[in-house]
Amino acid sequence: LKIFSLNSNRALAEEIAEKIGVSLGKCSVKRFSDGEIQINIEESIRGCDVFVIQSTSSPVNEHLMELLIMIDALKRASARTINIVMPYYGYARQDRKARAREPITAKLVANLLETAGATRVITLDLHAPQIQGFFDIPIDHLMGVSILAEYFEKKKIDEIVIVSPDHGGVTRARKMADRLKAPIAIIDKRRPKPNVAEIMNIVGHIEGKTAILIDDIIDTAGTITLAANALIDNGAKEVYACCTHPVLSGPAIERIGHSQIKELVVTNSIPLPKEKEIDKIVQLSVASLIAEAI
Amino acid sequence: LKIFSLNSNRALAEEIAEKIGVSLGKCSVKRFSDGEIQINIEESIRGCDVFVIQSTSSPVNEHLMELLIMIDALKRASARTINIVMPYYGYARQDRKARAREPITAKLVANLLETAGATRVITLDLHAPQIQGFFDIPIDHLMGVSILAEYFEKKKIDEIVIVSPDHGGVTRARKMADRLKAPIAIIDKRRPKPNVAEIMNIVGHIEGKTAILIDDIIDTAGTITLAANALIDNGAKEVYACCTHPVLSGPAIERIGHSQIKELVVTNSIPLPKEKEIDKIVQLSVASLIAEAI
Ligand SMILES: Nc1ncnc2c1ncn2[C@@H]1O[C@H](COP(=O)(O)O)[C@@H](O)[C@H]1O
Ligand SMILES: Nc1ncnc2c1ncn2[C@@H]1O[C@H](COP(=O)(O)O)[C@@H](O)[C@H]1O
Repeated sequence: LKIFSLNSNRALAEEIAEKIGVSLGKCSVKRFSDGEIQINIEESIRGCDVFVIQSTSSPVNEHLMELLIMIDALKRASARTINIVMPYYGYARQDRKARAREPITAKLVANLLETAGATRVITLDLHAPQIQGFFDIPIDHLMGVSILAEYFEKKKIDEIVIVSPDHGGVTRARKMADRLKAPIAIIDKRRPKPNVAEIMNIVGHIEGKTAILIDDIIDTAGTITLAANALIDNGAKEVYACCTHPVLSGPAIERIGHSQIKELVVTNSIPLPKEKEIDKIVQLSVASLIAEAI
Repeated sequence: LKIFSLNSNRALAEEIAEKIGVSLGKCSVKRFSDGEIQINIEESIRGCDVFVIQSTSSPVNEHLMELLIMIDALKRASARTINIVMPYYGYARQDRKARAREPITAKLVANLLETAGATRVITLDLHAPQIQGFFDIPIDHLMGVSILAEYFEKKKIDEIVIVSPDHGGVTRARKMADRLKAPIAIIDKRRPKPNVAEIMNIVGHIEGKTAILIDDIIDTAGTITLAANALIDNGAKEVYACCTHPVLSGPAIERIGHSQIKELVVTNSIPLPKEKEIDKIVQLSVASLIAEAI
């Protein structure tokens, strides 16, 4: 068993390797002068079961190509199995044709990984669980909700309500609510354009309670901060938010900083660069979860 | 027949469409807030023969992913054939395992294009013609040498010699020499001992002549500027240089600016951004060549 890290998630990869009790495999992942990726695997992996840790987080195209080229190199170096650990699966939101003549990039990514030579995929909280069916190789779909629930359990907050910011996330909110023995509420909203969110009304009782918003991805943080406003406006005592994948692009950090969200709890499926580490954000590790799946 | 352009080469695409007498197909190629590519084809292409113009020049991974996602969208929109025009084929230099456990990224790229759904490829001066065999779909391999030769023909320079900067490029130099009815010379690089500077030995007569260096790619311009020095030091009257693909990364522009090269003639297989448009560089269009192949 060998574990390699590419450039997206080195700290997490080291943590996973430590939990398993191996050291990370030696490989160099650099760029030629013109920006082309140069990968060299610096130890023999012939006949080995190889795990590659790489989230296809931003810059998504760079990280995806690193992964594909690494898989190609491993295949040609006679690895026995090539197991891809993608804590964050980029392009997962492009999982269907919402309009005519759109691509289904989440399926394309699955095809590219298989073509390159992946033999198994381990991932976390896919935007749509149907993406599992885009693969013809085994895929393990882990859930971050237990890690998030455990954190809130330890806080011992009274009178909480778990809130899904949209209809699509109700199952996730239900799971969290079961763990925390709490009721759920749903925000009934419409999204007029991508990256723009529209809030409607709240289904469920939230008055005087501590609301915990849960989502899979927080990207520009439009949805979640407007949801927090709606909750406070409708009488919630305070609002926490949590998600598995902190994409946090564009205005996200500013929006969260200025929002009514007391604390945002995320995982390290995507590492937070220094400039995104604000006081309000707590990052929990998925290393144990992944180490168990390996 | 429909022609679409992605982001690498819009000016060339427009020129090609004009020569063929059609207007470019409408599609938007943008980025979501987190950097993911968003493509939407804005006219019906059902049953059409579609051509997509895209060089996988720098930023290579962005341009390659744009192309793959576009192919996916075209396939799902029922295009009859999907013809990829890649004037510059990125990753072509990673065409073999030069060391143990290296990827063969040029082959990976071929596999990715086929998996996405490409049905034919048109490209120009591959770094190694063997890359044609990496595909199981038809591939048209065009040559830029006629365009470069025509330019020098019109200059009517007396006593020229065509020079290959290395052994690998002799065939290309020979083709150019046939067109210009000129003799050839070869720069024979040798390192007599490890850690000793390379000796540039010139095979062929260049004294008092106008030397025209020819290569497929000029990247950091190290080889070509040192070759120009060697030619001048050995008595050449003046030195021109030409290549099909002006990658021109890193120190290239500075090196060429300060070099003994009188003029560098390139094609627009890769567009030159404003900051690379220096007086010494002449850019010729491959639009007619490609339009004929379409
Ligand atoms: N990276 C992205 N950023 C924002 N929106 C996206 C992204 N990728 C896909 N989408 C859009 O998000 C929608 C799917 O999100 P959802 O409705 O939450 O499943 C589709 O309309 C997509 O076009
Ligand atoms: N983008 C690149 N920039 C510089 N060198 C490269 C690049 N891609 C591959 N190479 C290396 O260039 C060599 C092949 O060039 P050549 O010997 O001219 O065919 C191989 O050793 C490659 O590792």
